[in-house]
Amino acid sequence: MAASAPIQKTIYLGTFVHSKSLTELDIYEHAAIGVDENGIISFIEKDIANVQDIKSQKPEWKNAKTIIPKYKNSFFFPGFIDTHTHAPQHPNTGLFGKTTLLDWLQTYTFPMEASFTDLDRARKIYSNFVSRTLSHGTTTAAYYATIHVPATNLLADICLKRGQRALVGRVCMDSDLSPSYYRDASVESSVADSSACISYIRSIDSAGEIVRPILTPRFAPSCTSECLRAIADVARETASFVQTHISENVGEIALVKEMFPQSTSYTDVYDTHGLLTPKTILAHAVHLSEEERRTIRSRGSTISHCPASNTAITSGLCPVRELLDEGHTLGLGTDVSGGFSPSILENVRQAIWVSRHLSLQTSQESDKLATEEALYLATRGGAKVVGLEDKVGGFEVGMEWDAQMVVLGEVQEGEVVEGQVDVFGWEKTGDKIEKWVYSGDDRNTVAVWVRGRLVHTTSRYGGADV
Amino acid sequence: MAASAPIQKTIYLGTFVHSKSLTELDIYEHAAIGVDENGIISFIEKDIANVQDIKSQKPEWKNAKTIIPKYKNSFFFPGFIDTHTHAPQHPNTGLFGKTTLLDWLQTYTFPMEASFTDLDRARKIYSNFVSRTLSHGTTTAAYYATIHVPATNLLADICLKRGQRALVGRVCMDSDLSPSYYRDASVESSVADSSACISYIRSIDSAGEIVRPILTPRFAPSCTSECLRAIADVARETASFVQTHISENVGEIALVKEMFPQSTSYTDVYDTHGLLTPKTILAHAVHLSEEERRTIRSRGSTISHCPASNTAITSGLCPVRELLDEGHTLGLGTDVSGGFSPSILENVRQAIWVSRHLSLQTSQESDKLATEEALYLATRGGAKVVGLEDKVGGFEVGMEWDAQMVVLGEVQEGEVVEGQVDVFGWEKTGDKIEKWVYSGDDRNTVAVWVRGRLVHTTSRYGGADV
Repeated sequence: MAASAPIQKTIYLGTFVHSKSLTELDIYEHAAIGVDENGIISFIEKDIANVQDIKSQKPEWKNAKTIIPKYKNSFFFPGFIDTHTHAPQHPNTGLFGKTTLLDWLQTYTFPMEASFTDLDRARKIYSNFVSRTLSHGTTTAAYYATIHVPATNLLADICLKRGQRALVGRVCMDSDLSPSYYRDASVESSVADSSACISYIRSIDSAGEIVRPILTPRFAPSCTSECLRAIADVARETASFVQTHISENVGEIALVKEMFPQSTSYTDVYDTHGLLTPKTILAHAVHLSEEERRTIRSRGSTISHCPASNTAITSGLCPVRELLDEGHTLGLGTDVSGGFSPSILENVRQAIWVSRHLSLQTSQESDKLATEEALYLATRGGAKVVGLEDKVGGFEVGMEWDAQMVVLGEVQEGEVVEGQVDVFGWEKTGDKIEKWVYSGDDRNTVAVWVRGRLVHTTSRYGGADV
Repeated sequence: MAASAPIQKTIYLGTFVHSKSLTELDIYEHAAIGVDENGIISFIEKDIANVQDIKSQKPEWKNAKTIIPKYKNSFFFPGFIDTHTHAPQHPNTGLFGKTTLLDWLQTYTFPMEASFTDLDRARKIYSNFVSRTLSHGTTTAAYYATIHVPATNLLADICLKRGQRALVGRVCMDSDLSPSYYRDASVESSVADSSACISYIRSIDSAGEIVRPILTPRFAPSCTSECLRAIADVARETASFVQTHISENVGEIALVKEMFPQSTSYTDVYDTHGLLTPKTILAHAVHLSEEERRTIRSRGSTISHCPASNTAITSGLCPVRELLDEGHTLGLGTDVSGGFSPSILENVRQAIWVSRHLSLQTSQESDKLATEEALYLATRGGAKVVGLEDKVGGFEVGMEWDAQMVVLGEVQEGEVVEGQVDVFGWEKTGDKIEKWVYSGDDRNTVAVWVRGRLVHTTSRYGGADV
């Protein structure tokens, strides 16, 4: 496939910003990053006056392509990682009315997902959603699809074709929580269909360089005990990742308790069914007890924090500081369409707002997430969640070039510049990053690369190739 | 001035949406609204097949201009009313770091505002900010300027020239809370400078059709008792509106108690200085006691709810439901740059998110604001706050045409449409409105009118004039 074909060696010049640690950003101004034919970062050089400096130092890069942002207020930032989102729910974005989780599922979600037997409809929605997430700088996404094998495989095809890294999961749901018109017919069919998707996705990208399968038991209440156990077996046998929801909403927790009376907690349900491993992504994790968190840590499972969704459908405030302090691995998830935006940048903001609301409740100043911390979750944190921390999430030699070019507007008198970020000229780079985080949107992401391949541009990218 | 010159009679055709009441939207599809030479709504006709129907029924409208949206997923909505914002703080949007109110003022706000002695700088920032607010559909704004008379007058000039309704206030602050480099020299100069701005603004728009002055004692701690009293006298003598802050942050409340030991509460400070009248706009009102709220209601003063700001600088959760139930008059304020966005639509969302956080704390389902309620606050509620409820905020015969044309994107396979709202084709008008509220931005506001005059357009408006 095109996504694996060699590319031209490229030198990127300008300002590079990424997370050095949870609490610190590294900013390299006047720097250069060289990306080789395989999309791998070959060198990072600081304090570069111009591209000739590099080319004379490194003769093997003499014929490399050079990419320099056309605009002044610009920088390169790692591509975002969306650790939890539902591609088929994209048309429901913004529609939740006054519902919370359980009635929202029945009213909005299941009817929409059930319609993905229609492949033309699936193609339209999935193509649009992948375009959307790429336009927001998402270079890797963990997608829930629907229960349908053909539509799930189609989503993987689209991601591969567009060059977006993705974990694509067919949703397993065989319990009668789901309506009869939309659920797996049996444990056997659930396993067979999930296995079919794993085989297909591995057939189109055998090395899993762009798309990988992920087992996706929707959440405990939508699966029978037998199904959960069978899925755990498939995960082990196929060495697959698993994604599911946990402890999102108090009504859901009560339901789990009722449906799994033999389990001591929501976490215990997954644990006793063999579903908690270092390859398991747990979305939400809002209301976990200390003991549950201890179990999750000891199993090495990771957490997708979905702040926009948790606020929109009034699920609760995830105690992110506590989870971080205890040593959990966390990334951010847009959770469309519980979440109202496919943008991880919006969820960076929402993570910060939720942390401030939590700090108002607890009167703990330390509950507030700093800008740097939220950006870490959006990149390095997310990379750990999807098991790609050695490949993406930051700019390091040996890692792959998954990046976005960010351009902010320069104010001219009286005119409104493109996007919502206004730079007046006196701001330092740190201030520009803050302005991007708090008022940026997809208009500021003018180009996006995955493994060195250009996968999205806007009109403002034009002319960057030199 | 151009803003008062007669305009061409115009018939608008299409879908019109506005608040019928706090809890209900009226949606008129296939309707027509006629706007006369003075910008006043002359008729509203429902179930219109085409413009000829109207013209044959109403011969005097035979030569009227016709405006029909060029795109399918479009509707007219009343212009937004921003009841509280600080124009000079626009360049600080998104910059607040880890501060809360009092240190934020000293670190970010005062140094920026002090620079408005430079009129070139003021012109650049104010022009850009008025362009920004117009682009977000704000047809009326209550602006705080700085302490400087020339720059404040310049802001009024810019609003008048651009045709945006505005209350423009020179900030009064004579206490030593403010740094010596940025405060009024004395009570006398504070009064004289405020009066000079009132006279100037009334000289450029004697009927106050577009711009009106507003007295602006910053907040109790930044004014001496003598100054507060003198400003109240000027307000009475000149029949002016007053705007100030109240009970935003717990540290601020403690400071007020310390600085005004003779007062029984923050509200009592304003009340005993004669500053609480039906022409007084109180921003924030997060932590008021029941007694304070009773006083505010009995004086008829109104409240500007600033949800984005209250979250961003961790001020608290304003109990909007309680305030509404008690009969307070409320509008929305962006409170740039405590607030991180000049968009009232963003604050519609933020008002909803804050209400959900409040409901999580109180376990009161009723604390949640519905979409309809937040839109009411953004339009009709805001109009009441600024004393313009008979002129703007809704579409009624006799009211003025302050409106925005909203266009949502129609999904084509694989392409990303302009803006972030994706309409697939099966959505009803109610769903489209929800999509606009939860994922819309300035790209969806393609044209804005104030008093029948076109004051902002984007490229997608082109061709709407027939």
